[in-house]
Amino acid sequence: MSILVQKFGGTSVANAQKIRRAASKAIAAIKRGQQVVVVASARGKQTDELIADAMEVNPNPPKREMDQLLSTGEQQTVSLFAMACEAEGQPAISMTGAQIRLITDNVHTKARIKSIDAQRIHKHLDAGKIVIVAGFQGVDEDDNITTLGRGGSDTSAVALAAALKAEICEIYTDVDGVYTTDPRIYKKAVKIDQISYDEILEMASLGAGVMHSRSIEFGKKYDVKIHVRSSLNDNEGTIITHEGPQMEGIVVSGATLHKDLAKIGLIGVDNKPGNAAKIFAHLAKAKVVINDIIQTEVNTEKANMSFTVGKSDLADAKKAIEEIKSAIGAQSIFIREDIAEVSVTGVGMRTHYGVADRMFTALATANVNIDSIVTSEIRISVIVDKAQGEKALESVCDAFQLDRAADKRCF
Amino acid sequence: MSILVQKFGGTSVANAQKIRRAASKAIAAIKRGQQVVVVASARGKQTDELIADAMEVNPNPPKREMDQLLSTGEQQTVSLFAMACEAEGQPAISMTGAQIRLITDNVHTKARIKSIDAQRIHKHLDAGKIVIVAGFQGVDEDDNITTLGRGGSDTSAVALAAALKAEICEIYTDVDGVYTTDPRIYKKAVKIDQISYDEILEMASLGAGVMHSRSIEFGKKYDVKIHVRSSLNDNEGTIITHEGPQMEGIVVSGATLHKDLAKIGLIGVDNKPGNAAKIFAHLAKAKVVINDIIQTEVNTEKANMSFTVGKSDLADAKKAIEEIKSAIGAQSIFIREDIAEVSVTGVGMRTHYGVADRMFTALATANVNIDSIVTSEIRISVIVDKAQGEKALESVCDAFQLDRAADKRCF
Repeated sequence: MSILVQKFGGTSVANAQKIRRAASKAIAAIKRGQQVVVVASARGKQTDELIADAMEVNPNPPKREMDQLLSTGEQQTVSLFAMACEAEGQPAISMTGAQIRLITDNVHTKARIKSIDAQRIHKHLDAGKIVIVAGFQGVDEDDNITTLGRGGSDTSAVALAAALKAEICEIYTDVDGVYTTDPRIYKKAVKIDQISYDEILEMASLGAGVMHSRSIEFGKKYDVKIHVRSSLNDNEGTIITHEGPQMEGIVVSGATLHKDLAKIGLIGVDNKPGNAAKIFAHLAKAKVVINDIIQTEVNTEKANMSFTVGKSDLADAKKAIEEIKSAIGAQSIFIREDIAEVSVTGVGMRTHYGVADRMFTALATANVNIDSIVTSEIRISVIVDKAQGEKALESVCDAFQLDRAADKRCF
Repeated sequence: MSILVQKFGGTSVANAQKIRRAASKAIAAIKRGQQVVVVASARGKQTDELIADAMEVNPNPPKREMDQLLSTGEQQTVSLFAMACEAEGQPAISMTGAQIRLITDNVHTKARIKSIDAQRIHKHLDAGKIVIVAGFQGVDEDDNITTLGRGGSDTSAVALAAALKAEICEIYTDVDGVYTTDPRIYKKAVKIDQISYDEILEMASLGAGVMHSRSIEFGKKYDVKIHVRSSLNDNEGTIITHEGPQMEGIVVSGATLHKDLAKIGLIGVDNKPGNAAKIFAHLAKAKVVINDIIQTEVNTEKANMSFTVGKSDLADAKKAIEEIKSAIGAQSIFIREDIAEVSVTGVGMRTHYGVADRMFTALATANVNIDSIVTSEIRISVIVDKAQGEKALESVCDAFQLDRAADKRCF
């Protein structure tokens, strides 16, 4: 019998009515003859409220205790979810991370999964029950409760799907799936039917924010097909899977706009081996996450280098750079906070010429000035003035016909 | 090093400020050189709110899921409590029932404790930490979360004190200790310094409600000295312990008024062996808890019998009695709901004459009519008209000088 994992986020289980609606999706699946494992997050604003409770007693709470506290949010949801199933006459059982022996390392608040006791779950599935697992949580080898950090419930769901060899992992959310771009900016954006792990990873790291990168990496690694879909209706959403032959025809899958960025430039860095490593090792030590790196050799002695970071990392990045400025022989440092990054992503780029050309032409026609350019195998990003971000995104979306389903585009 | 168990009820940990105050009591004890284990209940109205959440999704929730849900209340308190200790620089660790391996049977919502892994707690105590244990909860052999039912956190605390061979188990509450009677009715009531398990058990079952009977029975069985005291100040409260020589001089320790009762009378029951057993076996099957039984032989063929039950059991009791009415040859049944029970309790009664006499004289002087009388080795109860309940209690309290400390009374 095939196994289906369904994950419901906080907004999909925010109150009794929504829990009942989510439960009805699980019950419908079991009636179709599948075995169903549900992974649920904490209800609505529960986690935020618990964090506020903690801050009130201790502004710097020990992480172990934070995990012990926050894990109750998911535990509440899963027991209520099981009750909702039982109210419909459907046998169900809720399980905490500890109860399914979801063993993690002991890095509290961002633990990594080591193993899951799939047998405990199979036993209940085989007894005809829906098994409802608390997302986001596990236990370390000493029975301390751990949490998986941001996007943890997605990771729980994908990891369970892998451990149970599930047919598919459905991620229910309050949108219909993954869109070619942000519909709040580009009203003509359309839902993507199918996309590869690599593309969605590029889009996620560029700020699309449908699922957390970690869960997608997990899905890619363990070959878990993911279906992002709406908890509000029964429409098909977006399937995230390995790149298939049919995807190659699609030049560009989606476009993103990332505005929460800053650019740091280093002018006149000594152009000698090891300097770049020195800079980025130092930034890593300061726990700064680098978005993109752009280096231009100026002459044999001096180079200019710039990189982008999330705004929240800017202060740390600036401090780190000041510390090594003289060691790397940099003449000056400049910072731009008024930038935005517009990117197009698509596995089809690999085999299609002219993607960059089409993008730059669109931007030029829209009178958008390009500050700098970064490319990877499956994406092209440009840095532009923040004030021109929306206009830049729209022009690129139009150029790649992101207002149409992939099979309806023609160039 | 001596071990102290401190239990804080829901009102004593209702908010951040109260949690901090409770934590300061634990820290004070560790600074005095004791090892401290804290047992905490869910915050304020948390449990009620969770029950309401459950009712909203399922008016008849499975008990296993109810336990899974409700146990989160205590888990939240203990993690916040540990954070509050750490905020004061005091190392602390919170533990769920599962984490201390508090193993129970699998009777959800009213599980019985089977064992506790004291070593897990000793390890942390020996490392200088305050160990904060979630009350009310355990796990069965299959890792299902169970709860201990009403008064469960008191039971957890006393059981932990027994398992750890603690010197004393402090029960913090919002009153100063156990009073000679309910101060809301008899304003002159005074705090009792020391009382025996048996006396407090009689008082608890008669409606005094300081601690749940089960935890006191546990304390009696495992020889745990209990100190009921206020979380709002540092005053000495009431010590509950085995009957000591000094207690024998105290004729009456306390008096109680129980108004939530009904009396069922059976007129003209066949006076033959086995009839009483038949009646009460049938009531037990209907899960009716009998308060007191009063039987009066009328003649060799027929007897009158009456018993009291809690109001909440009245409907079930009545139904059960109707069912066997003809089998026991009863001529008629009558029910009185307008009654109250006034009782005096004291281990000293055993060796003192005239307790009943003094009580009945006091009631007569106050013009209270006695409907019926029941006595045990350490208590005398009378059933009176409910309207006269308060007056009856006051007259009895005056007669036994329950407005004075035990060593200040003179007859």
